[in-house]
Amino acid sequence: MAIRVMLVGLGPIGAAVGRQLTTRSGFRIVGGVDIDPAKVGRDVGDVLELGRRLRVTVADRIGKTIKATKPDVAVLCTGSTLKAVLPQFEEVLTGRVPIVTTTEEAAYATAQNRRLARRLDAAARKAKVAVLGTGVNPGFLMDAFPIALTALCERVDRIEVHRVQDARIRRLPFQQKIGAGLTTEQFKHGLERGTLRHVGFAESIRMIADAVGWKLDRTTDDVQPKLATEAVESDLLAVDPGYVSGIVQDGVGYADGEPRIQLHLEAYLGAPESYDSVLIEGSPRIYSKIDGGVHGDIATASMVVNSIPAVLAAPPGLRTMRDVRLPSFYAGR
Amino acid sequence: MAIRVMLVGLGPIGAAVGRQLTTRSGFRIVGGVDIDPAKVGRDVGDVLELGRRLRVTVADRIGKTIKATKPDVAVLCTGSTLKAVLPQFEEVLTGRVPIVTTTEEAAYATAQNRRLARRLDAAARKAKVAVLGTGVNPGFLMDAFPIALTALCERVDRIEVHRVQDARIRRLPFQQKIGAGLTTEQFKHGLERGTLRHVGFAESIRMIADAVGWKLDRTTDDVQPKLATEAVESDLLAVDPGYVSGIVQDGVGYADGEPRIQLHLEAYLGAPESYDSVLIEGSPRIYSKIDGGVHGDIATASMVVNSIPAVLAAPPGLRTMRDVRLPSFYAGR
Repeated sequence: MAIRVMLVGLGPIGAAVGRQLTTRSGFRIVGGVDIDPAKVGRDVGDVLELGRRLRVTVADRIGKTIKATKPDVAVLCTGSTLKAVLPQFEEVLTGRVPIVTTTEEAAYATAQNRRLARRLDAAARKAKVAVLGTGVNPGFLMDAFPIALTALCERVDRIEVHRVQDARIRRLPFQQKIGAGLTTEQFKHGLERGTLRHVGFAESIRMIADAVGWKLDRTTDDVQPKLATEAVESDLLAVDPGYVSGIVQDGVGYADGEPRIQLHLEAYLGAPESYDSVLIEGSPRIYSKIDGGVHGDIATASMVVNSIPAVLAAPPGLRTMRDVRLPSFYAGR
Repeated sequence: MAIRVMLVGLGPIGAAVGRQLTTRSGFRIVGGVDIDPAKVGRDVGDVLELGRRLRVTVADRIGKTIKATKPDVAVLCTGSTLKAVLPQFEEVLTGRVPIVTTTEEAAYATAQNRRLARRLDAAARKAKVAVLGTGVNPGFLMDAFPIALTALCERVDRIEVHRVQDARIRRLPFQQKIGAGLTTEQFKHGLERGTLRHVGFAESIRMIADAVGWKLDRTTDDVQPKLATEAVESDLLAVDPGYVSGIVQDGVGYADGEPRIQLHLEAYLGAPESYDSVLIEGSPRIYSKIDGGVHGDIATASMVVNSIPAVLAAPPGLRTMRDVRLPSFYAGR
């Protein structure tokens, strides 16, 4: 029996998840929900650009779709903050449907989002289903993956994670999210509005700190623009010299005044070498590197799809990548 | 409250686990068991060469030690095969004590050991405690770690894992296990007796295959001697040219006639570059490398100690690294 999936949010990530689901035996898309009037009423197969219809019509209401389609799980890819997405979570949980979500703030409870995370946890427990926030980042490369590597250590002193991505291969909203093409002035305004940044460093830092048992004094999260020194273009955008080509973001968790967790992200058009690295200073010292890096858009959709069986097996409540079973590719059953 | 640990087996790995336990808050060694008359009756602190006494005397009986010390968990490091170790498992489980073990065959149930694994699983369920087989290999670097990386993929075609270790830094029994110093004739005899090989490839291959959903036709596991081309020595052994300096071992899992899982291990005195690498052919393609490799003796003891909280939290039965929560360094509580 295939796992019946309802997609909530058919933007680029939700659509990528949907396309993956259709290539794997063991999953069946039974419902699709979006607020975009340009999508509502169309066949999900059309919105996913599959070249074939799925005979599932995009609806604009979560509760009604649950009643009509009886999904085993909801994949929710609509927003980054718990505040924005909480009403959607609650509507899905009212229907007692487990959730896998790319909502970055759902990946781990931090000081900033603790109250909303508790509310989500309570709603999930009441519904007797699990909710999991995951994705490639937060959810894996800058938190679960380095955490797993610490299991090799008898002592951990400091953890440094780098993620460097040439943004030319990423989707348009990602290229926009990192400010590609803006003037430094526009970038500054975007920073002030909070739109120009990777969301998830606070969550990843907290997840690592809790895993290795560090009590953090404070956490910082700084974004700087990367300026193009020569003209650079993707299939979607062109950036002239002097304009912003992307971001450099540093997140640091301090314990006893020392920087113990350092997350460094570079995402800009034309980054010469993409890679993902983890350095664990300790015993033994471990330096792990993924040459070429991990393509964020594909991998985020993969993490979501591959996490569905773990969420169905998890005890009720807001779960994290720390307490569900080992992540793994899932081909279907 | 510290977690009360009973050590069963005080050989090099059991002793390394014991030493780590004494450096971490949150653990207390309450019992030690070994069959070696040279250890029985001595203080565990002496046997661990701590330079201080732990006021825990090494005993030769498991059941009696459990009654006298009421451990929360047993760490069992005595042998590689389920057949050899099953009576010890059963004695610990009669006392209803959860177990973390480095018994390689306990890491995952294979066609060869399925009957004994079922018996162990039944005994653990009856005792209402969990048993986990772990270590650096099997248990992590050539199975759980590549499995976790597949979570990034929408498609997995082939998995190749390399572990290359300069055996000069490893403990004496390891150097002996890989045949260092033998003639090719002696090596051949050792191979026939089954003593000269890494135990665990069958387990690791099966764990990966089950995780990614491949039905294997057959599995191979071949060991070749590595011959020294020039004189090489460790602190413990010297090998002349023409003698065996270690092993090269290849394990392959075939599905539909194709090699889908390839594990390659080189462990010999004087290997020029130690490393651990994972290649996942698929979408996306992932190549991860740990430069310098991971020191097997330290990391095996770390994996055992770090897995204790996960075993205490796991449901009863024979568990695997696939179904307990994410591995992580554990500092104590």
